[in-house]
Amino acid sequence: MSCVDLNCDLGESFGAYTMGMDEAVIPHVTSVNVACGWHAGDPLIMEKTVALAKKHGVAVGAHPGFPDLMGFGRRPMTVTPEEAGTYVKYQLGALMAFVRGQGMELQHVKPHGALYNMAAKDEALATGICEAIASVDKNLIFMGLAGSVMLEAAKKCGLEVASEVFADRAYNDDGSLVNRKLPGAVIHDPQLAMERAVKMAKEGKVISINGKEISIKADSICVHGDNEKAIELVQNIRKALEGAGIEVRSLK
Amino acid sequence: MSCVDLNCDLGESFGAYTMGMDEAVIPHVTSVNVACGWHAGDPLIMEKTVALAKKHGVAVGAHPGFPDLMGFGRRPMTVTPEEAGTYVKYQLGALMAFVRGQGMELQHVKPHGALYNMAAKDEALATGICEAIASVDKNLIFMGLAGSVMLEAAKKCGLEVASEVFADRAYNDDGSLVNRKLPGAVIHDPQLAMERAVKMAKEGKVISINGKEISIKADSICVHGDNEKAIELVQNIRKALEGAGIEVRSLK
Amino acid sequence: MSCVDLNCDLGESFGAYTMGMDEAVIPHVTSVNVACGWHAGDPLIMEKTVALAKKHGVAVGAHPGFPDLMGFGRRPMTVTPEEAGTYVKYQLGALMAFVRGQGMELQHVKPHGALYNMAAKDEALATGICEAIASVDKNLIFMGLAGSVMLEAAKKCGLEVASEVFADRAYNDDGSLVNRKLPGAVIHDPQLAMERAVKMAKEGKVISINGKEISIKADSICVHGDNEKAIELVQNIRKALEGAGIEVRSLK
Amino acid sequence: MSCVDLNCDLGESFGAYTMGMDEAVIPHVTSVNVACGWHAGDPLIMEKTVALAKKHGVAVGAHPGFPDLMGFGRRPMTVTPEEAGTYVKYQLGALMAFVRGQGMELQHVKPHGALYNMAAKDEALATGICEAIASVDKNLIFMGLAGSVMLEAAKKCGLEVASEVFADRAYNDDGSLVNRKLPGAVIHDPQLAMERAVKMAKEGKVISINGKEISIKADSICVHGDNEKAIELVQNIRKALEGAGIEVRSLK
Repeated sequence: MSCVDLNCDLGESFGAYTMGMDEAVIPHVTSVNVACGWHAGDPLIMEKTVALAKKHGVAVGAHPGFPDLMGFGRRPMTVTPEEAGTYVKYQLGALMAFVRGQGMELQHVKPHGALYNMAAKDEALATGICEAIASVDKNLIFMGLAGSVMLEAAKKCGLEVASEVFADRAYNDDGSLVNRKLPGAVIHDPQLAMERAVKMAKEGKVISINGKEISIKADSICVHGDNEKAIELVQNIRKALEGAGIEVRSLK
Repeated sequence: MSCVDLNCDLGESFGAYTMGMDEAVIPHVTSVNVACGWHAGDPLIMEKTVALAKKHGVAVGAHPGFPDLMGFGRRPMTVTPEEAGTYVKYQLGALMAFVRGQGMELQHVKPHGALYNMAAKDEALATGICEAIASVDKNLIFMGLAGSVMLEAAKKCGLEVASEVFADRAYNDDGSLVNRKLPGAVIHDPQLAMERAVKMAKEGKVISINGKEISIKADSICVHGDNEKAIELVQNIRKALEGAGIEVRSLK
Repeated sequence: MSCVDLNCDLGESFGAYTMGMDEAVIPHVTSVNVACGWHAGDPLIMEKTVALAKKHGVAVGAHPGFPDLMGFGRRPMTVTPEEAGTYVKYQLGALMAFVRGQGMELQHVKPHGALYNMAAKDEALATGICEAIASVDKNLIFMGLAGSVMLEAAKKCGLEVASEVFADRAYNDDGSLVNRKLPGAVIHDPQLAMERAVKMAKEGKVISINGKEISIKADSICVHGDNEKAIELVQNIRKALEGAGIEVRSLK
Repeated sequence: MSCVDLNCDLGESFGAYTMGMDEAVIPHVTSVNVACGWHAGDPLIMEKTVALAKKHGVAVGAHPGFPDLMGFGRRPMTVTPEEAGTYVKYQLGALMAFVRGQGMELQHVKPHGALYNMAAKDEALATGICEAIASVDKNLIFMGLAGSVMLEAAKKCGLEVASEVFADRAYNDDGSLVNRKLPGAVIHDPQLAMERAVKMAKEGKVISINGKEISIKADSICVHGDNEKAIELVQNIRKALEGAGIEVRSLK
């Protein structure tokens, strides 16, 4: 039987600021990417988020980002691979303390926002990040964009990888994501998103923006918990996957 | 044979800012307290500082502080024990990633600045901190002010403790430090500082500001690497200790 | 005819984080205290908040706080009067650029959170803050807790002051606020809050927690825009004030 | 008689961290660019730096940078022109409070580090910055790279501009700076740097890296106060300028 992971970014609140509907989305996913205090999250939030994951039996991953709370880690910054590596090491170590403090083990690391997008295209940057992760714990899984160089870099560093796909994003013929600024880049039809999720998880295929069926490895599907509608979609995607005989489970 | 540890705060530079003479002082100490990015230090500095400690065979401890880079963690902030616990957990986890990434183990945790001073007097705060440390790793040693409630709190949390003493500070009859604002609080005579260090390490005794010989447990002597003169004093203290037949070694 | 100002904290969002219902509350108030980027707010938010105030013809004040975004400026920090003065100067200057950039003038300064509470009781701290404000612009009004030493300090520094009162807080016989931790400190009955607002604005009187009628100077009533219910209360307070023949207007 | 300004970055210390030899360099320059708390500087430092400038009769400019203390504002960040404008507005307003608080007027604004380099090549970004400056005070002078589009943008926004040149940097034939990574980009010979400074200030000419004499507008020469040697060079450049009959004075 084929299986797939459903992952969601969590713990993005900060101090007095609340973001996301963590409690509503967590029952429906199998892995969470927890913000580590740089682009979002703070130590109290991290503690609570890990406790929430533990309560729901969900696997925890680190979600390190750029030192840019004001920009939510979404703005490209010029950093060296070495800098990026130490930034990831710092943040995953911080989260690891909360995870181990609650008797769990960290499952994976998935870079956030601009760091993710940059590392998906820049092998040197990805290598800096992955070497840092591997030096801390060889058993951590690196989660990254399906088909991107960041997964190749992770493998070269000896890390197991998880290919991440998006149910609500269009793909080019070469398997890369259609730029968000182009028409059709985001799929707004929930029914279509569900169908694409099932096809990717079951067949390892997706229809590109040009109508071509292409191959795509789908270890984990990224979903969102920003609002009621997003949560409804997560529920429906999960139901559709299970209805198609796909086991929805974490990476380990 | 009696033994004692010599500890020094290290890795307090930040970005383009340099602080301390880390390379000059490290050959003379046996343990270092490494800043964790909140009151001082950044990931690149942490990486370099841990490498420096490894090169010199010196034990590494975490030196967590308040989220106050502008005040160098020296300003009291009102935080709950739970907040303080998560702050320490975050910072020690971050440092742990660098330490383990270089194949070492973290030896101890010593709170920094205002957090240290507050926890030395506030058992609830100290307990919040020590429970957090113990939850991450029961084998970590808690370093704190000799004779203070923070050591009692640490013991209750199941942590091994290291009593820290100061060669250049005057003590009250009850073993507490003389307030820095009072005359005689700081000992400026290097010869006297050396003699006090030896007496504390060898006999477990110190002459209080009132001329009374009092008992003091000295597992680790705090020294400084801020300038040439401070480094000379460290060298002299170490020489005096070894000359008196005391083994100078890390805590583990 | 008597008159009173209605003030509300605004512009407390930060980056991707939203806080408060600024657009809903602003039509009902006459002055806003705009966060200046330290405990809340960022430059983009400040620009938008000032534009919103301009659109609604509402007076703008600076709302400087401690450098503690994680604690939303609500946690006491030990700072010298000189430090506090420079912190306020920095923040009010920053806001002033946005205010002048849109062709308006800054009306007042009201410290935020812990800085407000501390300065209300610590004349030296309040003096540090008020001297800083006066040095930048003698025409700025200092808004502070009715009856507190911070208003005395402001007057000594040559600043005009605005006495701030709270419709939903109980007062002690001496005119100080009942500690939030004590029963009865917060008034949850909207009808009672309205009546107290009117009595304070019209008669300069309030019934203390001990049932005594005491004098209180009410230049500005603090209201909140956190949620639907709070906004409804603001509307009702304003209606009640106007119904009682009190002019609701800004301080200048 | 021809005249030129000598400008230097100042006030780059932060909290417990010291950077630069501000007191040693300031007697030799005529304008200072004061860090505004984002990439360097803090309110106490800003207060002291403005006081130092006042004491020495030196003109003060704002030196706003990216929100990146860890990278000292030297790392490119992707920001919109609007974001950049509000960042500059915030920082120049903050500094203005200190300047006016001491009875002075702000003379100019010169972006720092990566913001300077990016705006020198990106007219939209430069326009965002310059519109923001002009909205606050039309009388502020914009200081930027000689011959770059940022000066054109400033002029279009109605700002007076000051063309900045570097005595120790090589120029391409088109008047742009030779990339630092290329050989010969930095001129290490103090005698040559002095001669180039004089030629630029007196004749408006410089010999390019290809040996061609090119035109360059030199309103202000940038000098450094990082170390003893740098300060000696500043003194010598000033002496050489004055010896060549050039008046060394601030921009206003």
